[in-house]
Amino acid sequence: MRALRFEQSSLSIRDINNPVLSEGKAIIRVVHAALNRRDYWIIKGAYPNITSSTLGSDACGILEEGPQHLIGKEVIICPSLNWGNTESYQDHDYHILGMPQDGTFAEYCLVPEENIFPKPSHLTSEQAASIPLAGLTAWRALCTKGQCEAHKRVLITGVGGGVSTFALQIAVAMGAHVWVTSSQDTKIHKAIEFGAQGGANYTKSDWFRQLPNNFDIIIDGAGGEGFGSLIRCLAMGGKLVFYGGTKGKWPSILPQHLFFKQAEILGSTMGSPLEFSQLCSFIEQKKLIPIVDSSYPITQYNTAFDALLANERMGKIVMSCS
Amino acid sequence: MRALRFEQSSLSIRDINNPVLSEGKAIIRVVHAALNRRDYWIIKGAYPNITSSTLGSDACGILEEGPQHLIGKEVIICPSLNWGNTESYQDHDYHILGMPQDGTFAEYCLVPEENIFPKPSHLTSEQAASIPLAGLTAWRALCTKGQCEAHKRVLITGVGGGVSTFALQIAVAMGAHVWVTSSQDTKIHKAIEFGAQGGANYTKSDWFRQLPNNFDIIIDGAGGEGFGSLIRCLAMGGKLVFYGGTKGKWPSILPQHLFFKQAEILGSTMGSPLEFSQLCSFIEQKKLIPIVDSSYPITQYNTAFDALLANERMGKIVMSCS
Repeated sequence: MRALRFEQSSLSIRDINNPVLSEGKAIIRVVHAALNRRDYWIIKGAYPNITSSTLGSDACGILEEGPQHLIGKEVIICPSLNWGNTESYQDHDYHILGMPQDGTFAEYCLVPEENIFPKPSHLTSEQAASIPLAGLTAWRALCTKGQCEAHKRVLITGVGGGVSTFALQIAVAMGAHVWVTSSQDTKIHKAIEFGAQGGANYTKSDWFRQLPNNFDIIIDGAGGEGFGSLIRCLAMGGKLVFYGGTKGKWPSILPQHLFFKQAEILGSTMGSPLEFSQLCSFIEQKKLIPIVDSSYPITQYNTAFDALLANERMGKIVMSCS
Repeated sequence: MRALRFEQSSLSIRDINNPVLSEGKAIIRVVHAALNRRDYWIIKGAYPNITSSTLGSDACGILEEGPQHLIGKEVIICPSLNWGNTESYQDHDYHILGMPQDGTFAEYCLVPEENIFPKPSHLTSEQAASIPLAGLTAWRALCTKGQCEAHKRVLITGVGGGVSTFALQIAVAMGAHVWVTSSQDTKIHKAIEFGAQGGANYTKSDWFRQLPNNFDIIIDGAGGEGFGSLIRCLAMGGKLVFYGGTKGKWPSILPQHLFFKQAEILGSTMGSPLEFSQLCSFIEQKKLIPIVDSSYPITQYNTAFDALLANERMGKIVMSCS
């Protein structure tokens, strides 16, 4: 079968053997797969000891082998493998589909049966392929850690990326009051179209003064110097949930700014199979439609990765795999 | 009546009017009152706009006026005033007994009826006077925020101070496995006598390598550079609860060190009346005996404040007030 492989520090389409079914596993014929920054970091060598792998954590496809009641149907994959029995953190042999285990940028993909979920019925294959990694990360950060609910005041930084855009959509669908930040005014306007109350362009000085200063929940994947300003925007009892650090270290922080507020800074990464099922139910119930930025055939993977990193991106980058 | 007053930037014993009873209030004849660092910070001018006040947040005494069933009995005072209806944070007009409202360093003290609690029956007046502010702060940090329970692995920094010593005693009484840090080996040895498993002297280089690196809960009141090392000692899903920052700003922190662990950094200050009642029940049930470092007549307040700041201190500093 055809697969997009990371081998000897570079990416190429290769012809490899189809996956072989084993006990408790399922095989999906991948129709669409979505890109994540994780795929980019792997290519850039951020994960040492990787020799070769088929990349890709997200897919929507047709179940070829696996749970009887879903065979021949459209399904999506929960990308969390070996989460373990504790909801509050992942097991030590946890990993994410797509490295080291072969992922979804291929014609076929092998995963544990319990990672197969029905595609939400109102979505296209492209839209459904956008859900898994980003949607799950957003769900855990916003709902499990941040305890989002109607009327909460929520700030989502760096809107446009996969996780932040899902967090925006989920929070709006919950009836929360949502603000965003971005480096681009156009993305703030798009976010307002999707239900945000307003936003601030963080490339401008004193950007945080453009925002309310009483957020119950802040969702951040950037870190960096701006993290210090986010803290000032927290309400009493506010929760700042962080799932990334693309802008590097937090600045030096005075604890007195936080403990008087009873503020909480909560680390979050990925999510459990239970959270994935909660996310799928929510998407189905609210008829939430993931935002797809653009879609490419897998042969145009270079263009797809460029789109992943483009400043203008709003939502997920998808590839068709079959 | 006699009271230890903070007036015109200095501390002195003055003769002032007795408090006057009003609806919903209680009057306690103070037998013992305990010192807190808060009293010291007030004297040092850390709280602007303070003109004059009787200091003191902690007391054990005899109820003179108030709830009928406790009149003539020994009681202690919950020092949290106007906490409000939300357990997760205090109301905007919350304050702590002792400034601006006259506190416990006096012969008599006026507080709301609902802040009166029976003295735990197994304790002396001195021991019971040690409980309120430090015990409540430790309870919220360790139990509400840290969710301490049997077999949890707990690190308590700066043992010897009021809050850290209560946190040690409560965690040990819960059956947790407790380690401590201190600037003094003698305090680590004392902590081991009180049930700690071990500890590290944080004035030594690489002190954190003397400790396990898988704490479920860390309780810190110091902040400063050492905070960065504490983070390395967190287990997967670990909670670092901070209630102070005597050593100043945290260092710059890389978020990647935390979110992969699903780690949480939780601000905590004081506690609610509900938490105070939980603390009193726990102390009664476990027959926990607060550690009193030393006790002085109120006339020797200068000596008492010196003892509060002494490096060797282990537990609370108490004054007799009547």
